[in-house]
Amino acid sequence: MFENSIILLDWLGIVVFTITGALVASRNQMDVVGFILLGTVTGIGGGTIRDLLLDAHPVLWVERPQYLGVCILVSIAVFFTAHLAASRYRLILWLDALGLGLFATAGAEKAASLGEAPLVAITMGVISACFGGIIRDVLGKEDSIIFSREIYVTAAVAAASTFIGLDAMGVSRELSVGLALAAGFGLRAGALAFGWSLPRYKPRAPER
Amino acid sequence: MFENSIILLDWLGIVVFTITGALVASRNQMDVVGFILLGTVTGIGGGTIRDLLLDAHPVLWVERPQYLGVCILVSIAVFFTAHLAASRYRLILWLDALGLGLFATAGAEKAASLGEAPLVAITMGVISACFGGIIRDVLGKEDSIIFSREIYVTAAVAAASTFIGLDAMGVSRELSVGLALAAGFGLRAGALAFGWSLPRYKPRAPER
Amino acid sequence: MFENSIILLDWLGIVVFTITGALVASRNQMDVVGFILLGTVTGIGGGTIRDLLLDAHPVLWVERPQYLGVCILVSIAVFFTAHLAASRYRLILWLDALGLGLFATAGAEKAASLGEAPLVAITMGVISACFGGIIRDVLGKEDSIIFSREIYVTAAVAAASTFIGLDAMGVSRELSVGLALAAGFGLRAGALAFGWSLPRYKPRAPER
Repeated sequence: MFENSIILLDWLGIVVFTITGALVASRNQMDVVGFILLGTVTGIGGGTIRDLLLDAHPVLWVERPQYLGVCILVSIAVFFTAHLAASRYRLILWLDALGLGLFATAGAEKAASLGEAPLVAITMGVISACFGGIIRDVLGKEDSIIFSREIYVTAAVAAASTFIGLDAMGVSRELSVGLALAAGFGLRAGALAFGWSLPRYKPRAPER
Repeated sequence: MFENSIILLDWLGIVVFTITGALVASRNQMDVVGFILLGTVTGIGGGTIRDLLLDAHPVLWVERPQYLGVCILVSIAVFFTAHLAASRYRLILWLDALGLGLFATAGAEKAASLGEAPLVAITMGVISACFGGIIRDVLGKEDSIIFSREIYVTAAVAAASTFIGLDAMGVSRELSVGLALAAGFGLRAGALAFGWSLPRYKPRAPER
Repeated sequence: MFENSIILLDWLGIVVFTITGALVASRNQMDVVGFILLGTVTGIGGGTIRDLLLDAHPVLWVERPQYLGVCILVSIAVFFTAHLAASRYRLILWLDALGLGLFATAGAEKAASLGEAPLVAITMGVISACFGGIIRDVLGKEDSIIFSREIYVTAAVAAASTFIGLDAMGVSRELSVGLALAAGFGLRAGALAFGWSLPRYKPRAPER
């Protein structure tokens, strides 16, 4: 049952990130193939880079082509319904927050299960959660999530760190995953709801 | 003889894509090293990403350094002759269309020969054909091919899908490759000659 | 003692490149997590791509997480002291020149020690030295080093080529490394001090 929940959340994460990629395609008024390209890159890009770095072959969608299939179908669906999705933009942001927490947790868990050091595992979680969106924004010429005023990457760090920390303390895997998800989603949710942000660097010397 | 034709087309594809990368360097008035960098990334970038994702090591140019050599020589040649190439811009676009069809077909064929699922093999064909150009456009700050109004990525999908479809039906490799190339090149050629394009997403709700 | 010098220079290279990445974060007034992300990507990005292409797993920071730790600590330090670093911008450029020479030499040496062909080893040196900065500039929306008017990528080519050439002639590893570093650093230093540059492509036909 726990395994099933994880798998369900994994799929949900891919679906949600694919939607955010396809919505960037809609803003650029692309054709359906453009939707599929941007949607798929966003949905599975982070996990792909994680697997390449971990030398965990075959990478997720080479091992399970149904991931590709879902990205393609969801992107096509957004092509025909993006006007609805756009009016539900806030909903998407909340789902994206859930995907962020899930991917960060799952990415850290995968690296830890392969025996990687804690710092490496946390980094893999952050890469899983953020690099799909980073590639989406570079290709789609959007303002990158790394420029986000509100907390974003930090929430991925929180989720991955929470999982690795609890796991190191011997907490059960179920509880570690649950609390990590809560930490990542909660932090991003707070950013969405209340504009939470970290202090930003302020230049003290005159601008060059 | 068939093998020789394939190899000839493979080299032709690399040469042509390298030229398109070097021409972006010429538009940015780079020095010869900039030409080599952009030309080489474009010529072998797509195949490199395909090989990394397939865990097909050594990647093409690590196995055969002469690929690097050709990219370098072609880029240098363009540095000294770009004014000629520019006046033959239409010719380059047609050669690029041939390279697109060839790389998409060859990429799908390589993945299929490694036993990958059809959907994975088609994706690898598209990556081979398109990601060199995508990297070129990101680095050179050009409008990306994924924003192209006329059919581009779609032609790569058509070539790769045709090869995989015919191959699955038991059609001979020679004929499958020939028809796949014809499908990819033909579709892109139609886009160049007649402005063929797929319907684009049109926002129905007021713009956010 | 020679080994210790190499290791010292390797760490110095990572520190310096991390600083340049974190300074881009400061120009964009990011929070501390943004500093860490851009700093780390710049510090270890080039070496990571080299290791992926060489199939040299585990990649450097997966094998030695302390590389990650240094990137994170340096980025945090820059967050609190960037106003000092900015006023020492020229110093950073000179340290960056040292890092460039070191990474190009070390990257070529690693590839050569794995038995790669000379052209492949030189390319790996250039990738080690330049791709961290290239990713930094794409993510930070800076003008890319590949557009640099003064010699930059060329200095990496010089360092890597010098090492491979001397190594092929049977020169001792110590001397080859020293001369390669001198060639790369010297060329970039000349570019900084005297504005050295290669001739750039000048369009002869009317601009399209």
